[in-house]
Amino acid sequence: MPAVSKKGLSMPESPIRKLVPYAEKAYKANKTVFHLNIGQPDIKSPQIAMDAVTSHNLEILAYTRSEGSELYRNKIAGYFQKHNINVTGDEIIVTTGGSEALLFAMGSIADTDDEIIIPEPFYANYNGFATASGINIVPVNSKIEDNFALPPIEEFEKLITPKTKAILICNPGNPTGYLYSKEEIQKLAKIVKKHDLFLVADEVYREFTYDGAKHYSILEEESLVENAIVIDSVSKRYSMCGARIGCLVTKNKEVLKTALKFAQARLSPPTFAQIASEAALQTPQSYFDDVIVEYKERRDTLVKHLEEIPGVKVGHPKGAFYCIAQLPVKNSDDFAQWLLESFDVDGATIMVAPAAGFYSTPGVGKNQIRIAYVLNTESLIKAVHILKEALKVYKD
Amino acid sequence: MPAVSKKGLSMPESPIRKLVPYAEKAYKANKTVFHLNIGQPDIKSPQIAMDAVTSHNLEILAYTRSEGSELYRNKIAGYFQKHNINVTGDEIIVTTGGSEALLFAMGSIADTDDEIIIPEPFYANYNGFATASGINIVPVNSKIEDNFALPPIEEFEKLITPKTKAILICNPGNPTGYLYSKEEIQKLAKIVKKHDLFLVADEVYREFTYDGAKHYSILEEESLVENAIVIDSVSKRYSMCGARIGCLVTKNKEVLKTALKFAQARLSPPTFAQIASEAALQTPQSYFDDVIVEYKERRDTLVKHLEEIPGVKVGHPKGAFYCIAQLPVKNSDDFAQWLLESFDVDGATIMVAPAAGFYSTPGVGKNQIRIAYVLNTESLIKAVHILKEALKVYKD
Repeated sequence: MPAVSKKGLSMPESPIRKLVPYAEKAYKANKTVFHLNIGQPDIKSPQIAMDAVTSHNLEILAYTRSEGSELYRNKIAGYFQKHNINVTGDEIIVTTGGSEALLFAMGSIADTDDEIIIPEPFYANYNGFATASGINIVPVNSKIEDNFALPPIEEFEKLITPKTKAILICNPGNPTGYLYSKEEIQKLAKIVKKHDLFLVADEVYREFTYDGAKHYSILEEESLVENAIVIDSVSKRYSMCGARIGCLVTKNKEVLKTALKFAQARLSPPTFAQIASEAALQTPQSYFDDVIVEYKERRDTLVKHLEEIPGVKVGHPKGAFYCIAQLPVKNSDDFAQWLLESFDVDGATIMVAPAAGFYSTPGVGKNQIRIAYVLNTESLIKAVHILKEALKVYKD
Repeated sequence: MPAVSKKGLSMPESPIRKLVPYAEKAYKANKTVFHLNIGQPDIKSPQIAMDAVTSHNLEILAYTRSEGSELYRNKIAGYFQKHNINVTGDEIIVTTGGSEALLFAMGSIADTDDEIIIPEPFYANYNGFATASGINIVPVNSKIEDNFALPPIEEFEKLITPKTKAILICNPGNPTGYLYSKEEIQKLAKIVKKHDLFLVADEVYREFTYDGAKHYSILEEESLVENAIVIDSVSKRYSMCGARIGCLVTKNKEVLKTALKFAQARLSPPTFAQIASEAALQTPQSYFDDVIVEYKERRDTLVKHLEEIPGVKVGHPKGAFYCIAQLPVKNSDDFAQWLLESFDVDGATIMVAPAAGFYSTPGVGKNQIRIAYVLNTESLIKAVHILKEALKVYKD
């Protein structure tokens, strides 16, 4: 029997994949499961986007241009310009989700065994894209005590080798909720310029900032004109995760030319999803205002109730809709499984994402979990109550 | 300025990409351009599929399961069973087009610098997927004189090294239109079993066979239960190229498990497209019967008129909707450019795909072009007339 590849064997599994059978067991036992583990928002997609698809009049569902239509790309550029990001349509390549934009970016800038430095904890699927691309992630540890702020820049500098091709950040961060300040972005700008690296920023949560904090894009940093690559997506912005539309944005002409070749090989991003995504650009500001009010309330509720639990420490999120909580347990993988398998409060339990999977350094984050606040406040309060009761009785 | 990757630099461009500026020049000069260069059919997508999307009632455009919904996969299995291919829903992973299925297959079975043997000429984007995956394509030459039949199996055997992981075929073939016989598939089965290789078959044109010839899938070959990986897509079958839905099918559990990890990293295939593709499975047989009648007529017209041109040799297609024509020119790249730039018959010209890009061996196929018969017969007759007149005056 022919064997699968080493690459395939080393492809990581999702941090919650191991828990799925236990969640299914919980359903079978008729338990209610509050899902704090996934980034699938419960917010409705904009009506204007959904209507654009129901009223399509295509006779042939044809390929689009590999880079997305000129009209759509120009409209995306208009969106960025409104956010102080001065790009044109031809500096944008439309992709199948932010995922594909990341794959195109990694493929365009790094060869086999090259390295990309990423502050950990980071979005777990970066591991999968790196493995698929044959490149190595080098983590730099950020700490819950600092709310996962940018680690000292010397920590990055220590890790730079001739194989280092880029620093990758997620801003605001999944799973931390941390929002990098302008000063932090400028520190990163300085170091990537100094060492001739790319700075890749996954900015898909751009709109999700709280307490009046403003997102500062790496593309606002003029010194980075040749170094900056932004990963974007409609998934979270418009609660359209199933569209699978994102884009790669850069002013570096060589990167654009290279990423376009990856895009051409796979022919075209999905057509219906581009119709929805183009229409979504007309979503009124009131939609975002409402969403931000909702998420802010959820965040405040979540953090307040979590901090009332003895022994729990919380990273205070300033953006996105995740937070990392440190628990008085030794191994949150075991704890998460136990919650599904052996615990309930009046027939209800919670599913959380063990945080070790968001760290690249072995052994780090084992007493942490990621919570996505994609449930309404009432459910969040119930869910945190369950966590509190569980910690009273759990022994590891 | 940071440099792009060597991989990125070596990503191939599409064989027709160089011609695009000349096509644009032709449009500007108000020339009519008959497009024989692309595989975008002019056939309408099934109404039932398009209606399923217009009548969607989703409020949240959410992720689907990474491998596609159980219901959809079971329905796909039902489709395969009707085609004598005995698979179950859990032997199927839904992908973003056949393109992604190929990427998942290559990533699952081959590591950096591993080799995959492919009869040439082959679908040019295999080069892109191989480069993106860091693996090498080893071509085995098939000949227009044999209609691009399977090369002698000894030719494959000569090329097998410890790095060889698979043989990849496209059946029926793009760009050749060749349909492998059951005997040819059995020869391939024998050699992959003998050398413990995978046999990957891109069978996206399964329905497009003519003259009563029947497609024989590698999954019908019981000896291949552990070796066979089928790449499938809705793009050509239902003229839904813009859906970007395909699948990877295999009975090899390790490959399924591995490909699923690649699928999980990118979260989900596009949701609207899955709605369309699931509905498309109910397309009545009459749709395919009509399409086959139409393509057969086009093929017959095309081949007849091509063979009337002095010095032109044609590979007789038995399936798909492409054929390779050998022309009395030295360099079909130059000829294709000249057609757009400097030639017309009553204001009309043609765009063809130079065939060298479908060969991996340097210098081979330079006097050949690929013609996609995705135009109606009237247009095809005009297009071949233009080719005939062009060859009378062209000097290279």
